[in-house]
Amino acid sequence: MSGIITLLTDFGNENVYVGVMKGAIAQINPQIQVIDLTHQIPPQNIEAARFSLTDAYKYFPEGTVHLAVVDPGVGSKRRGIAVEFECGYLVGPDNGIFSGILAESPPKKAVVLSNKQYWRTGQASSTFHGRDIFAPVAAHLARGVNVTVLGEEIDPGTLVSLKLPQCQAVDEGIFGTIQCIDIFGNLITNIPESALQGKSWFVEIQEQIIPSGETYSYVEWKKAIALVGSHGWVEIAVNGGSAKAVLQVDVGEKMAIRYM
Amino acid sequence: MSGIITLLTDFGNENVYVGVMKGAIAQINPQIQVIDLTHQIPPQNIEAARFSLTDAYKYFPEGTVHLAVVDPGVGSKRRGIAVEFECGYLVGPDNGIFSGILAESPPKKAVVLSNKQYWRTGQASSTFHGRDIFAPVAAHLARGVNVTVLGEEIDPGTLVSLKLPQCQAVDEGIFGTIQCIDIFGNLITNIPESALQGKSWFVEIQEQIIPSGETYSYVEWKKAIALVGSHGWVEIAVNGGSAKAVLQVDVGEKMAIRYM
Amino acid sequence: MSGIITLLTDFGNENVYVGVMKGAIAQINPQIQVIDLTHQIPPQNIEAARFSLTDAYKYFPEGTVHLAVVDPGVGSKRRGIAVEFECGYLVGPDNGIFSGILAESPPKKAVVLSNKQYWRTGQASSTFHGRDIFAPVAAHLARGVNVTVLGEEIDPGTLVSLKLPQCQAVDEGIFGTIQCIDIFGNLITNIPESALQGKSWFVEIQEQIIPSGETYSYVEWKKAIALVGSHGWVEIAVNGGSAKAVLQVDVGEKMAIRYM
Repeated sequence: MSGIITLLTDFGNENVYVGVMKGAIAQINPQIQVIDLTHQIPPQNIEAARFSLTDAYKYFPEGTVHLAVVDPGVGSKRRGIAVEFECGYLVGPDNGIFSGILAESPPKKAVVLSNKQYWRTGQASSTFHGRDIFAPVAAHLARGVNVTVLGEEIDPGTLVSLKLPQCQAVDEGIFGTIQCIDIFGNLITNIPESALQGKSWFVEIQEQIIPSGETYSYVEWKKAIALVGSHGWVEIAVNGGSAKAVLQVDVGEKMAIRYM
Repeated sequence: MSGIITLLTDFGNENVYVGVMKGAIAQINPQIQVIDLTHQIPPQNIEAARFSLTDAYKYFPEGTVHLAVVDPGVGSKRRGIAVEFECGYLVGPDNGIFSGILAESPPKKAVVLSNKQYWRTGQASSTFHGRDIFAPVAAHLARGVNVTVLGEEIDPGTLVSLKLPQCQAVDEGIFGTIQCIDIFGNLITNIPESALQGKSWFVEIQEQIIPSGETYSYVEWKKAIALVGSHGWVEIAVNGGSAKAVLQVDVGEKMAIRYM
Repeated sequence: MSGIITLLTDFGNENVYVGVMKGAIAQINPQIQVIDLTHQIPPQNIEAARFSLTDAYKYFPEGTVHLAVVDPGVGSKRRGIAVEFECGYLVGPDNGIFSGILAESPPKKAVVLSNKQYWRTGQASSTFHGRDIFAPVAAHLARGVNVTVLGEEIDPGTLVSLKLPQCQAVDEGIFGTIQCIDIFGNLITNIPESALQGKSWFVEIQEQIIPSGETYSYVEWKKAIALVGSHGWVEIAVNGGSAKAVLQVDVGEKMAIRYM
């Protein structure tokens, strides 16, 4: 129990929704510290949420509660869950956003958030489970409540998983996939910098050739470039634009690195 | 006394002003927790501040101090005030930003912030009352100081009020008004989702017809659409643009919903 | 020792890097309060970081640790430093970002961060010293560790300094310099509002004349205007655009104010 909750959403910072979730946490225990990861996940982009959470969780104290609300299925039958794992707790919708973390550090226990006693009020709105269910549940976990009281236990093997394909190195290059797209429309691949082995390379995607460089400005305005992002993965960007819009590419698209 | 201050401004996140207000609070008591509501209220837009504060205040613990600085009249004769109400305290300029909250939960006591002992220093700058007066006063309230010591009591009935007109339902539709405009130029009406009663509808504004839809992308790029925003009110947006700029409409403009 | 760390970076709010630095701090002591100054310093812009830090530091409690990561030289031979000065502590790269603060309040002690015992792990990544070195060191300082244990002491006189030229008033106006450029491309000069003495004025820069006004909208869309920014300095802006891009001007460029 670290008394810390991290918060990741696709709500943006222009409205009061993130503040309201923090209020709902403070109503349960004002001593809890809430740390923002980011609120600029592209709207309803589960892959980008999974990517960011996987990047961040390992830098927090043991017992930290990671609360994430990127929830295109809110109001449908998708489950709300809490998971206990080696480094702490996960709270949010069961749509795969936590599957990157759980692939590295397996779940110990998982529950469906069916016990309304731990909700904000007995009745949740159909549109804002972040405020009405997930934030209160995270606050209770952060003050030491046992995960098993929050609802009925489920088999962790039934949690929704987004499988990230592995990239494949061959003699001439590496075959990869777009694993997520950030708020600027940059295409982040599943190829880590280490796989490049310091060689010279370019990218092939949709029968187009994209040069590699150090920075966006290595190419002309509105032209595409491939580079290693600050997250450590090969990404495809457009200087002053959105690679997603220009290349008309989505998550799961195949691409390849070719050595020169 | 919750030890919590919420903070809402139109300062943006690109400069250090919000951080500096938090510093001024910490100089009085570093134990106080400050929770950001948003700092992206459109510049000097009192209606948007009123809207956001009214949305948020009810999700915070009793005794919370709501500090809001959207203050086009700073340096003029407008009053700086602190108000005690059922759920906590309000601190900021007396320009109507709190009138949505106070319409729901009436004021108990109000004071003009004339007691310089509770200011940052005896002398406030003429341009940054947020740092020099409001933040210190909020910090003193959050650590338990009585509101009446902050200055001379005033009749709560004299507080500036922004009256929000009620929408009017008739057989063929609902007559409404633009109640505020957000940072993206979306026009938020005073018609709640519940008033729509699940019927099919479109919007009439300034002799134009605007279709309704689920999301911005329901219409072509740069075209107007009406939808229910995540705040629960009917809003008018332009896909990829600013409805305020395209329709040349401001707060107070009349509009109507027509059933199909 | 205030238990407070301020945080200023050029990381933006779209990714998890700022959150991860806060996690690294919480791993050492979850009681420390971290206050964001801004994360929207233009990428690698040391002058803008120096400007913002100089503006902000004086509004924080004594003993506050100011942690700043605008670090174009990461991975090179530039030194990582901690400095003790009258108001608290400074932690970050030795590239001049703290030189505005230290010109106002001289350093007492300075160390190179060579003691790996106070790093996140014994081994720092070559690209993210903010997480691996600076955040842990700041956390140790904020919980009362003595600055001298963090590494070998260096002569404060050897710290990198960005000298800000003084503006020069003459009868017909004031000669000045662009001291930094903000994230919007506004050019901030080294001429304070007080130097204007209430006179009517315009700006000359690169043989162009730029009128002065109260707000950006005083001139037509995409036209340049000079005004006093909310930071209190004369700045040159372009209505709806970037003055840096339009005027092709960089930090250090000479300009002049002419009285009318």
